Amino acid sequence: MSLVTIKVSGNSKPNEQFVVKAGAFKIGIGENQTKPELNAPCPVEYILAGFAGCLNIVGGLVAKELNIEIKSIQIELSGVLDVDKYLGTPTLERAGFQTIEITVTPISDAPREVLKKWISIVESRCPVYDNLFNHTPILLNLVHELQPEVV
Amino acid sequence: MSLVTIKVSGNSKPNEQFVVKAGAFKIGIGENQTKPELNAPCPVEYILAGFAGCLNIVGGLVAKELNIEIKSIQIELSGVLDVDKYLGTPTLERAGFQTIEITVTPISDAPREVLKKWISIVESRCPVYDNLFNHTPILLNLVHELQPEVV
Repeated sequence: MSLVTIKVSGNSKPNEQFVVKAGAFKIGIGENQTKPELNAPCPVEYILAGFAGCLNIVGGLVAKELNIEIKSIQIELSGVLDVDKYLGTPTLERAGFQTIEITVTPISDAPREVLKKWISIVESRCPVYDNLFNHTPILLNLVHELQPEVV
Repeated sequence: MSLVTIKVSGNSKPNEQFVVKAGAFKIGIGENQTKPELNAPCPVEYILAGFAGCLNIVGGLVAKELNIEIKSIQIELSGVLDVDKYLGTPTLERAGFQTIEITVTPISDAPREVLKKWISIVESRCPVYDNLFNHTPILLNLVHELQPEVV
């Protein structure tokens, strides 16, 4: 077992951009549809970007193991979601992406069969792929701190 | 149905930071463990950050609907993952987060019962919650473009 804990946190205030701290980094979250002045990528764009980044890193790792030279990898992701559930409009559709479609284009001299093996290993070892494709347990704690009264 | 398509793409090259384009935004992806010089948040940090941002936006939306005043929301997320699968070490553990734990602390005068109702609606309408907690279909296309030969 080689357990790693990843933590992020943010403190949101009305009419300010929500900024999430991840170690020394700050990640600004946008609400482009409702508050265009607080412009930044929106949450689901970060999900797809993180997924692309994860496929890229695992792709590089597995290419080394298989001794494949890959000059570059083009990764495109798209997801369709019905915003009705999110907005509170009655619907039978799910809240999130209905499907995530990925196109991976490696520039490599390796034969197609080798690249097919490569991508199937990448899929099986990509943490984000696992968390989206399979059920991920989520434990949510609500802490209620009453607003201190001003006397 | 109010379908929205979200797209991102990136082109990775060896020893360069992988930058994902999301509309007009660029999201740099880090590989902090293996290439500290290409420093940026790592993919799974973006997943948790996007999740925090999503909870925050839906939280604000639902608070308005329930007519609750929330002065600020503190959101903390942590996830534990075993990197063995990702690194290719034989393991029976999954590749991704084993659990994602969230602590939401709204600063509000609203009674606890009302805030419990609020957070349960937020959970059910948060797109990222849905995609992580439930199965999300993933369609991966491998495009093989042979490296053009230099004659």
